[in-house]
Amino acid sequence: MSHKALYASPAELAARIKAARGQVPADLVIRGAKFLDVFGGGFHDGDVAVAGGVVVGVKDRYDEARELADHAGCYVVPGFIDAHVHIESSLMTPARFQEAVLPCGTTAAIWDPHEIANVKGVAGIQWALEASEGLDLDVFVMVPSCVPSTSPELALETSGAALGPADLLPFRDHPRVLGLAEMMNFPGLLHTDADVMAKLDAFSRLRRDGHCPGLGGKDLNAYGVAGIHSCHESTTLAEAREKMQKGVHVLVREGSCAKDADTLLPLLGAYSSSVLSMCSDDRNPLDIESEGHISCIVDKALRAGHAPDQVFRMASWSPARIYGLEDRGAVAPGYLADLVVVRPKKAGDWTSGVEVVAVYKRGRLVDRRRLAEVAAAGGPGVAAFAGGQNLKLEAARAEHFRVASSGLADGEQSVRVIGVIPHAIVTDSLVERLEVRGGEILADPARDVLKIAVLERHHGSNRRSVGFVRGFGLRSGAIATSINHDSHNVIAVGSSDQAIAAAVSELIRIDGGIVVVTDDGRKAALPLPIGGLMTGASPAEVSVALRALKALAADAGCRLGEPFLQLSFLALPVIPALKITDRGMVDVGKFALVPVGCD
Amino acid sequence: MSHKALYASPAELAARIKAARGQVPADLVIRGAKFLDVFGGGFHDGDVAVAGGVVVGVKDRYDEARELADHAGCYVVPGFIDAHVHIESSLMTPARFQEAVLPCGTTAAIWDPHEIANVKGVAGIQWALEASEGLDLDVFVMVPSCVPSTSPELALETSGAALGPADLLPFRDHPRVLGLAEMMNFPGLLHTDADVMAKLDAFSRLRRDGHCPGLGGKDLNAYGVAGIHSCHESTTLAEAREKMQKGVHVLVREGSCAKDADTLLPLLGAYSSSVLSMCSDDRNPLDIESEGHISCIVDKALRAGHAPDQVFRMASWSPARIYGLEDRGAVAPGYLADLVVVRPKKAGDWTSGVEVVAVYKRGRLVDRRRLAEVAAAGGPGVAAFAGGQNLKLEAARAEHFRVASSGLADGEQSVRVIGVIPHAIVTDSLVERLEVRGGEILADPARDVLKIAVLERHHGSNRRSVGFVRGFGLRSGAIATSINHDSHNVIAVGSSDQAIAAAVSELIRIDGGIVVVTDDGRKAALPLPIGGLMTGASPAEVSVALRALKALAADAGCRLGEPFLQLSFLALPVIPALKITDRGMVDVGKFALVPVGCD
Repeated sequence: MSHKALYASPAELAARIKAARGQVPADLVIRGAKFLDVFGGGFHDGDVAVAGGVVVGVKDRYDEARELADHAGCYVVPGFIDAHVHIESSLMTPARFQEAVLPCGTTAAIWDPHEIANVKGVAGIQWALEASEGLDLDVFVMVPSCVPSTSPELALETSGAALGPADLLPFRDHPRVLGLAEMMNFPGLLHTDADVMAKLDAFSRLRRDGHCPGLGGKDLNAYGVAGIHSCHESTTLAEAREKMQKGVHVLVREGSCAKDADTLLPLLGAYSSSVLSMCSDDRNPLDIESEGHISCIVDKALRAGHAPDQVFRMASWSPARIYGLEDRGAVAPGYLADLVVVRPKKAGDWTSGVEVVAVYKRGRLVDRRRLAEVAAAGGPGVAAFAGGQNLKLEAARAEHFRVASSGLADGEQSVRVIGVIPHAIVTDSLVERLEVRGGEILADPARDVLKIAVLERHHGSNRRSVGFVRGFGLRSGAIATSINHDSHNVIAVGSSDQAIAAAVSELIRIDGGIVVVTDDGRKAALPLPIGGLMTGASPAEVSVALRALKALAADAGCRLGEPFLQLSFLALPVIPALKITDRGMVDVGKFALVPVGCD
Repeated sequence: MSHKALYASPAELAARIKAARGQVPADLVIRGAKFLDVFGGGFHDGDVAVAGGVVVGVKDRYDEARELADHAGCYVVPGFIDAHVHIESSLMTPARFQEAVLPCGTTAAIWDPHEIANVKGVAGIQWALEASEGLDLDVFVMVPSCVPSTSPELALETSGAALGPADLLPFRDHPRVLGLAEMMNFPGLLHTDADVMAKLDAFSRLRRDGHCPGLGGKDLNAYGVAGIHSCHESTTLAEAREKMQKGVHVLVREGSCAKDADTLLPLLGAYSSSVLSMCSDDRNPLDIESEGHISCIVDKALRAGHAPDQVFRMASWSPARIYGLEDRGAVAPGYLADLVVVRPKKAGDWTSGVEVVAVYKRGRLVDRRRLAEVAAAGGPGVAAFAGGQNLKLEAARAEHFRVASSGLADGEQSVRVIGVIPHAIVTDSLVERLEVRGGEILADPARDVLKIAVLERHHGSNRRSVGFVRGFGLRSGAIATSINHDSHNVIAVGSSDQAIAAAVSELIRIDGGIVVVTDDGRKAALPLPIGGLMTGASPAEVSVALRALKALAADAGCRLGEPFLQLSFLALPVIPALKITDRGMVDVGKFALVPVGCD
């Protein structure tokens, strides 16, 4: 067993052996259902008996039980594992995240606390470990490898923190740390940069996750040689197939923004089902509420006609093996009783999709109300960052958002414009002619060319940059947020300088979160007091706030389905093509700052 | 990666990355072959490039290489892993064992040094680790869990050593120790005996191998609950299927005595190929020479029509996963370059069986001559037990082997007779009428009822017992050996008391091994100076000696194909039905000593 596995004392082991033999009653017996055989495939008839939080018997009949759960016509499968998630993207604390995902069947999550680490550095990772301690959901942590996401020498942006190998090392021996999180800096790896080599070395005895969109051929070989064992960034089937063949495990992702399941699920077969996994990466609470979590990928796979024994294996046993979680992933004696009771939405037809009937965590029925009570009581570590000054910013004024022309007093000028593509985090790099008046370049809301601003919020520098964007469609008001990958400076888009200033002012007032303001004085806000990224509010409260925000943005003319998610990726200078950081516009192709004007 | 995995320094990693990218030449490129995809299944075209002992590239073309190996028309698969072996059963030291099995494609073996531990105790395990250090073959060790095989309180036999939890504990942290070896004492486990619980606890963070012939139902559930993850003792398909379904990994065994492959291989499919493994358990040098090692099971599986991508995965990737050997088992970047080049015996037809064309260990071509030189030079640790007094016995005399009647002076008496079943280690429990003369029960070679004797050899007690056996067919002479599972006392069978005494005398003279003598004074012997179990002689020398021994036994009338193997299991009091130890006849059903006479 792995050093991460559940330990049982000899006395506990003896008690379970007695329960397995039927000499003492089991804590729980699930009867009437079939259970998944993750080893040989298929489903088998028989009882599933649980004692001490583990499965103690399958197939054989157990008549003595403290609790008998009749699940006639259902199927018992192992708890789903989210192989790669940024819990921050749920906007909630881990205690609230579990309230949202445990009822969907997710019983373990492998968290890369990349966002809070970018804001708070080492303290952010410490907080992540504390805030996920002692939950029902088993949260494992991968230590962020790329904080900041771009090399500080490039000076493309200002992050809250920069973590070197020495900062990461102390986390290696934490019992819930499984390894090093997504190695986004694959160019640095391929060039064998000392910093990257040192990080890989520090975690050489643990797992090292990858992140290599589009990588193939010999460079992919090199990436695997470095010990990188996974990638969740494949967007074409051919790309994913090459990764799988070369031993870089494919995590099939279905987030709120990036949706790869339909494209990548054709990889799944009886043979490959043992090496593929599912992950959510970034998934917002509205999507979790409406479509589920890992269950959503399970559902898609079943609807696509994949065999259920392959689908449920991929959701549980395989990620457990890939990440060395040897105590889970099977409905078999000795494995954790993390069990999901499911059935096809339409009896006898798995292509109708999956219904989650009940979830057992360590043999205990998951009860939404109890989870809500635990989280409402504060949960572990939640207080740590509350009340902190998340936005170190001076008061916002309209004149902060003026854009000077390239010397021209009045007339027209060509400017770079970020072209937002709905449901994608890549952007177009556009050029538009804009009016210049009094030495100032003016936005043109009528043509949907709006101002976008990024304000450094971590160090009190008040550094800011202003550029232009197309795609939001706002005709009134502005949107501002402190969620802004990966450095999480403040980003705002608006129909006027006044509106942007109003939105930023409101964001400062609530100390971070998401804000929409309109010109007629209406406001909607979701405060995110923990680092400007997360809240201790309940999934229902967050959903209500998000819906209000979306509704107000739509009222203000916004045409995007996910305006806040899309806005929060416009400062990520590692994703093409044109982005904006606190230091200015970034041409990602050139990996360089470029001026707004391009005459 | 597991704590057992191969470590590479940042500098080594950087060098391999450069080789992977083609910036520096690879050490070796295998060209023209297809390579196995253990992840997605099937075989793919392309180069396999190796540097620093690991695979650095697959699929892509590598034109720069120090060595180019053209294997047109062949297939590159990962090195085979013997998931459970007693190297002692090869009669050779680990250095000689590798000389025999590496050329067959076995590049790693998981050794339970149960036999030498029974003879030498803790020192035997230490020796096993020393003697397997630094070989080309990677030898991992499971620490023997059941020395002696029966509880000392039962006093059924006298072993060389008895190992408690405290004796085993110090081996846990050795880098090549993977866990606790086959837990044969499953009755003790089911009864939660403190000794068994303590041993399981001591190895709770490592693997714990099983051994549970015939176990099923709730008792099998209990065995799995205890953390036992494997069993190599299934002899029917239904038994193996239940174990697999319940998460006790099935190791398909093909030894010299126990041959389960044909029976169990129907378990293999695309889905299950990731959880099944192959093992040899006990395989003698003649069989290795004539049929191969793990390659023999591969061959059988292919001939049975199994898909080659499933067969080769089961021989390599799957045992590596099951035992946490994360650095091996795939032809993929970053994995050890333990590679076997194979092809079907008849081109294009895998059902013709497999031919091993070449074997690469860590990228180096396996060369029988070099291995022979290494072993001839002594090899690590071989000297440790050489010259020891393996047989603490007084000189043998014919009168030692008389059997007293139950009071009768002359006439006939009913006696218990061990019925040997060819190619099986279970026996029949027979009753025969034998002549009594002068208060002594006489053997009856004409009816193939011969005397069999066991002599305690470890402690100088000179305790011995004599009984009767049917099945050897000897009409002249005797056979004696110090290989005698699991306590390895001396066991001898012969056509007369004088012949038994002569064979034992010869065995004492060579200090242990295998001896055949005939009444006309011919002798054959294989000395096994290391604990009376192993020799440093070469595979070829051992084969010559074994053939001479078999030929002489056949000349003396023996009708068994494997007389020495069969003899050496007749004292194992955990295998039904009637056995004999130094303390007397054992009725295994009753787990009790019984007298020879049964009137």
